[in-house]
Amino acid sequence: MKVPPELISFLKEKDNFFIATHINPDGDAIGSSIALLFALESIGKNALIYDKDPVPEIYRFLPGHERFIHSISGLTPSAHNLILLDCNSLDRVGIDGVNFPFASVIDHHETENEFGDIKWVEPDAAATGMMVFYILKTMGLEITCEIAINLYAAIVIDTGGFRYSNTDAEVLRVAAELVQAGANPGEISKSLYEMWSEKRFQLLMMALNTLEIRNNVAFTAVTKEMFTKTGAGPEDTEHFSNFPRMMQDIRISVFFRETGDNEWKVSLRSRGEVNVARIAELFKGGGHKNAAGYKVKATLESSKELLLKSIAQLKVFQT
Amino acid sequence: MKVPPELISFLKEKDNFFIATHINPDGDAIGSSIALLFALESIGKNALIYDKDPVPEIYRFLPGHERFIHSISGLTPSAHNLILLDCNSLDRVGIDGVNFPFASVIDHHETENEFGDIKWVEPDAAATGMMVFYILKTMGLEITCEIAINLYAAIVIDTGGFRYSNTDAEVLRVAAELVQAGANPGEISKSLYEMWSEKRFQLLMMALNTLEIRNNVAFTAVTKEMFTKTGAGPEDTEHFSNFPRMMQDIRISVFFRETGDNEWKVSLRSRGEVNVARIAELFKGGGHKNAAGYKVKATLESSKELLLKSIAQLKVFQT
Repeated sequence: MKVPPELISFLKEKDNFFIATHINPDGDAIGSSIALLFALESIGKNALIYDKDPVPEIYRFLPGHERFIHSISGLTPSAHNLILLDCNSLDRVGIDGVNFPFASVIDHHETENEFGDIKWVEPDAAATGMMVFYILKTMGLEITCEIAINLYAAIVIDTGGFRYSNTDAEVLRVAAELVQAGANPGEISKSLYEMWSEKRFQLLMMALNTLEIRNNVAFTAVTKEMFTKTGAGPEDTEHFSNFPRMMQDIRISVFFRETGDNEWKVSLRSRGEVNVARIAELFKGGGHKNAAGYKVKATLESSKELLLKSIAQLKVFQT
Repeated sequence: MKVPPELISFLKEKDNFFIATHINPDGDAIGSSIALLFALESIGKNALIYDKDPVPEIYRFLPGHERFIHSISGLTPSAHNLILLDCNSLDRVGIDGVNFPFASVIDHHETENEFGDIKWVEPDAAATGMMVFYILKTMGLEITCEIAINLYAAIVIDTGGFRYSNTDAEVLRVAAELVQAGANPGEISKSLYEMWSEKRFQLLMMALNTLEIRNNVAFTAVTKEMFTKTGAGPEDTEHFSNFPRMMQDIRISVFFRETGDNEWKVSLRSRGEVNVARIAELFKGGGHKNAAGYKVKATLESSKELLLKSIAQLKVFQT
C-alpha cells in the first residue's frame, strides 16, 4: 500500500488538524482516529478528534478514547485542516455544510464521492487502521504502545477477528508488528469480545431459545418481557443476529427486537451473494448487502411470513 | 523457538515414522500431524498418521485428513519410529503398551512425563502447529499450500482465533507466512466456525440452558439424553466451553460431557493467570494453563462441588 506523497506533505506542512469520523463509530473509526491524533501530536501538531456520537462502551478501553469531542460549537473551522477518516463525506460525519480551508479523505469504503482536496481511498485495505499504519511508517513516526493498541483494535474489528476474507498476509504482518510495539492480543480481544454482562448473556440464551428455521432462514426474537426479566437493554442485543449464522445451512439470519406492542425492529444478516438490503428496502428500511434492517408492525408470526414471502418474491436466494 | 538438533537428526536419519496424536483430536493435533506427514513424505520418508478416533467433521476440509488411520491391527511397531504429536504418552493416544524401537515427543502441553527417547516440549508454544512449522523451517522444507492450510488451522484453533493470551507477535508472523504460502484465512475460518449443523447448534442451546454460575465459575453440561434428543455427537461439543467465557465476571468456564452413568468428561477454560491445569492434575487429568480437562465419576452436583472445593483449596483465583 503506497501513501500518496501529497498526503504526507499535507500532514507534514500543516499544523492544525480536525480529524473527523462517521456517526455510530466502530472500532476502526475510533482506533484509527486516536492513532493518527497521537502520531500527529508526537511531531508537535495540534489536532482534534471528532465524532458526533459517544464512544460505545466496549471501546472505552482504548487509550485516548476520552480525547474525542462530540460537539463543534466553539470550533473555528477556518483554523483547521480537515481529515476525514473511515468515511468520505461531511454528511457521514453529521456536520454537513461546515467549511474547512482544506480537506483530506483517508478511507477504505467503496462509495464514490467528490469531496476532498486530497483523497486516499483504498477499497482493498482491510481497515482504515491499516492505512494509518502505513502513514506512520512512511512518515517514520514511532508506533507507541498506545498507537499500537488502537490500530490493533481497529484491524481486529474490521477483519472480524482475522476471520473475514479481507484478512491476508499483510494484515497479519502488520498485526504482528503492532503486537511487537506493545498491543496485547489477549487483552484487546477480551475487551472486545469477552466483557458481556451476565444479564446480556441470559438475554442471548432467551433469544436463541426462540430459534425457528424455515427455508434456510433462521428466526430469533427478543420480546419486551425478556428485557424486563433479564434487566438487559436494547443495546445489549448487538451481534445477536450473528449467532445463527454459525449454521452452515442458514442463508439469512433474522433477529426481531420488540419495540412496542406488535412492533418490531428487524435485523437481517446474510453471507456472500445473498442481498438482504433488497428485502429491507421493500419494508422501507435500508443497509448493506449482508447486513440490513427495517421496522414492522405486525404479530411476530405474520412478520415472519411477510418476510418469507418477500424473500420468495424477490428471488433473493437465486444468486 | 529452537528445535533440538537430535530431533532434526532423528527425522533426517530414519525412514519410517508412525505419527500418533491424542484421542478426541482437535485442530492442532490433526493439522500438525498432517503437516508433518506431508513434510516427511516430501523428502522421501514413509510415514503414517494415527488417531484412535475419527477426524471430527469440522476438520474434514483439511487436505490430507483422509490419510489418518484409526487402527493399528496389522501394524508392525518394530518397523516404525514413533512421533507423538500434541501429547506425551501412549496412554493419551490410546495404544498403551505398544512397543516402538524409538520414540520422540513433540508437544506443548505442560504435563510432565518420562516417556520418549527424544522429547521436545515447549509449554510456551501457542500450538504444536507452531513447533511443526519451526521443524520444517529448520529442515529447510517447503511450506506447500496443503501444509500451510493445516498449520494455519492448527494455530487458529489453539489460539482461539488469535484471541487467547498465547497469541503473540511470533504467532501472527508465522500465520502471515502460512497465508503467504497459500492458506486462506477467510475460507479456513468459515470452515472452522460457520459450518455448524443444526443439531450441533441445538445441542449448544441445550448446554447453555444448563448454565449455572457459582463463585465466578460457569458450569454447563451436556447429558447423554441431549445427544439422543438432538442426534449430535460428542465431537459436536468442541468449543462449547468457550461460550460462557464471553461474560466478564467468569473466571473459569467448566463444561461437563456425560460419558456414562454419572461419568463425566470435564473441560476447563480460564483466562490470564488463572491456571486450570493445576485443577485438572488434581483429578489426574492434564492440559494447559488456560485449557485443561479430566474425567470424573460422580453425580453432576457432586462433581461441581468437588471442583469448587479444589479451586478454593488450590487458591486458583489468588494469582
